Amino acid sequence: MGNAVGQPNDSLIAMQDLAALLKGICGEKFVFTDREYLLNYETDQTMNLRYPFDILIKPAFAREISEILKVCNQYNIPVTPRGGGSGVTGGALPVMGGVVLSLERLNRIVCINKLESYVIAESGVVTADLCKAVEEEGLYFPVLPSSGAYSFVGGNVAENAGAINSCKYGNIGAYVLNMEVVLPTGEIIWTGANVSKSATGLNLTPFFVGSEGILGIITQVVLRLLPPCLPEVQLLASFNKLENACNAVQDIKGACLSPAAVELIGKNAITMTAGFLAEPLPLVTPDVTAHLLIGLQEYHPDVLHRSLEKLVTLIAKYTDNDVLVAETTLEKEQLSKLRFNIGNAMTSGGRNYRDIDACIPVGALYNYIRRVEDICAGNNLSLVFFGHALDGNLHTMIVMDETQLAGQTPTLDKAVDGIYEYAISLGGVISGEHGIGSLQKPYLKWQFSPTQLSLMRRLKSFFDPNGILNPGKIL
Amino acid sequence: MGNAVGQPNDSLIAMQDLAALLKGICGEKFVFTDREYLLNYETDQTMNLRYPFDILIKPAFAREISEILKVCNQYNIPVTPRGGGSGVTGGALPVMGGVVLSLERLNRIVCINKLESYVIAESGVVTADLCKAVEEEGLYFPVLPSSGAYSFVGGNVAENAGAINSCKYGNIGAYVLNMEVVLPTGEIIWTGANVSKSATGLNLTPFFVGSEGILGIITQVVLRLLPPCLPEVQLLASFNKLENACNAVQDIKGACLSPAAVELIGKNAITMTAGFLAEPLPLVTPDVTAHLLIGLQEYHPDVLHRSLEKLVTLIAKYTDNDVLVAETTLEKEQLSKLRFNIGNAMTSGGRNYRDIDACIPVGALYNYIRRVEDICAGNNLSLVFFGHALDGNLHTMIVMDETQLAGQTPTLDKAVDGIYEYAISLGGVISGEHGIGSLQKPYLKWQFSPTQLSLMRRLKSFFDPNGILNPGKIL
Repeated sequence: MGNAVGQPNDSLIAMQDLAALLKGICGEKFVFTDREYLLNYETDQTMNLRYPFDILIKPAFAREISEILKVCNQYNIPVTPRGGGSGVTGGALPVMGGVVLSLERLNRIVCINKLESYVIAESGVVTADLCKAVEEEGLYFPVLPSSGAYSFVGGNVAENAGAINSCKYGNIGAYVLNMEVVLPTGEIIWTGANVSKSATGLNLTPFFVGSEGILGIITQVVLRLLPPCLPEVQLLASFNKLENACNAVQDIKGACLSPAAVELIGKNAITMTAGFLAEPLPLVTPDVTAHLLIGLQEYHPDVLHRSLEKLVTLIAKYTDNDVLVAETTLEKEQLSKLRFNIGNAMTSGGRNYRDIDACIPVGALYNYIRRVEDICAGNNLSLVFFGHALDGNLHTMIVMDETQLAGQTPTLDKAVDGIYEYAISLGGVISGEHGIGSLQKPYLKWQFSPTQLSLMRRLKSFFDPNGILNPGKIL
Repeated sequence: MGNAVGQPNDSLIAMQDLAALLKGICGEKFVFTDREYLLNYETDQTMNLRYPFDILIKPAFAREISEILKVCNQYNIPVTPRGGGSGVTGGALPVMGGVVLSLERLNRIVCINKLESYVIAESGVVTADLCKAVEEEGLYFPVLPSSGAYSFVGGNVAENAGAINSCKYGNIGAYVLNMEVVLPTGEIIWTGANVSKSATGLNLTPFFVGSEGILGIITQVVLRLLPPCLPEVQLLASFNKLENACNAVQDIKGACLSPAAVELIGKNAITMTAGFLAEPLPLVTPDVTAHLLIGLQEYHPDVLHRSLEKLVTLIAKYTDNDVLVAETTLEKEQLSKLRFNIGNAMTSGGRNYRDIDACIPVGALYNYIRRVEDICAGNNLSLVFFGHALDGNLHTMIVMDETQLAGQTPTLDKAVDGIYEYAISLGGVISGEHGIGSLQKPYLKWQFSPTQLSLMRRLKSFFDPNGILNPGKIL
């Protein structure tokens, strides 16, 4: 048995022998054991968590992944699949050590079928690259998460990722027609078909969407595409009272406007990000308590402009401040600059954050925020909230000094407990789009009954009898 | 052991003793063994197939269904759940005898939440009633199958039913937020949450959508609702050449028009239905080979009228015949009368049909129809085709005299073989929306690999270890 740091206790092979076997599958140059190089794969974007592991492997084909999983099953080796590493709940962290399997070499766009309106891509394609390639063919793929410049499309499907425009278009799972998946036991299957509709046998596709890589490794995805819409128009409104912003969100929901995005940005998010950017930003004034950044994506100019007018009128009921509208790329960059730098601001100056993305009924939005604010204030914690208000999917981040955060201080735990307890009491869920990963595991039993949890656990064992695939996640 | 017709061979209890146990669960008046009454539940709309069984039970609550399933598990009794009985592939046929469990008493609309835009309904609510109740609250539920006047919403979810407007709105599965399901072993679970988004644990909802009642009995559904759109406008066009109609469909797909329905109706369907109705019908003339019935549902009058103009221009490229437009209810009834009487025509005068609803790439539509026509002609079979052309989901029905059909003549088998073989060679699937049921089982292995089939079989055993729930279906 080898002695590498993080070697799984129950492995039945020395790590150097396993590395040799894996080199036989993928070739010498795609199996890595150099500790310094492996450091890059010990983390994702989940706070500053870091887990050492033994072997990094970069296969290029489903058949190689199949062989890797068969070997790891034989020797009881944990395998953590890794996409772009953009997760914030620990989904790609090798918490049990062993093997990290990076999908970065599965990076081919296989085909774009214009008539049937789908794209086939390997799972390691960067989502923004996929969107661009699709756009060049005159089509549109709407689910580009904020992390899209580096997250992988396979990872996005594994997490059932949302985007800023999910209130109009839904999460990525709604677009998956078919997938190639390698099961933990090595079988390679396609889960659906490349046609509009199917009621043929049990639909295996949704088993893997959002399963966070614990049931199988996605190697190809077939995604439904949309016709392109007009360039987005954005609108930024500011409010002196948070309650007014929340009421405006409810009115928008009732107004049949179908906006592509309705992002609520709270006072701390505005102040922290404005400080981080250190430049004048639109509608950032001392008395502003909240922003709404709204996007409109439509097919017809008339509809676009009528929706815009209707929105401006609606918002005027809740604020006397100016409402800004952006149509050009430059204007939109300026308008959304604050929103898209909140993440950078939260991780600047030695800070990091505990991600909380509960999804609650939109009618409870204001009360939920107030309670979360109270809980954080009561525990002397700094809260930054923003996000997908129209879906009730708010990101309420607890921002702390990195050293504090790493320790998972009791006050942090207490605050997170209180927030989830309240969210669930409202009929909400622990995560709207960021998943459970390793970070949120303790809370699953707060939401689900023992029967539900037992079913999920037994499903995991069904697909992965030896529990080698992404162990320590969700369940 | 009892001697009732159709009694399952391996049951471990006499049927009269079982009936007594079931009466203890649901009450005397909801357990039926009278053979004449049971006749009504021996069939669904699958040709003239008929299967005798022993006991009919009509529970009213999930907890009763849980107790029923526990008893039936204990004594190894087949249980066939039954919704509105509108299936055409044998999904509700008690092919193994035993117990039929009708969901007709679970017929309450529990609540309509306007702000959060969802309806909670028990599974035995008639789908048209649900749509009407939702409409009265100022909202819209778009998936009303042709059978909606008598099919149940739970059955529609169990089959992942489509509707004539699924090319715009998708199948019913896209609207299911949450379900209450009784597992074959008696556990009652909720599968999701009543919020817009969830990435919390394994999503159990899609396991049961489209599983045709073999994995669990759906007792309540929570369906996402849409804002209401303008009254639909319909358009009817006729073509002297089928190829032109198919090319028009492809052009419509490329034209970003997002129609709510694009129904292609073939010559035999037109002739047979016109004969059945025996009255003058719009655009029915001797030289007409195909109709396209197109529906437009939009939120803005401008968009509606612009789409209509664009469609009329597009269609004029492919036919010199008049194009009819209907805006009033009366006009629309007239325009769609033929389409909605095809089913009645096919089952009139002692006729019935073998349902085939393969879904193929829309680019292959014309070639597919030609091949199906050739296969039927070569076997002296009468073909009637119509359906959801924009999705490539055509209903190609083989119409026969009832006595012929019941015998499943070798020519019928040969023709069906040939049609599915060709559909699959095109990348298509056996069923787009009608499911596999008992009728299509032999063809599943044509589409799926042994690995896929084995996975489906093992999933069935996972949920239903004794195989009591809707046995003889899909697998």
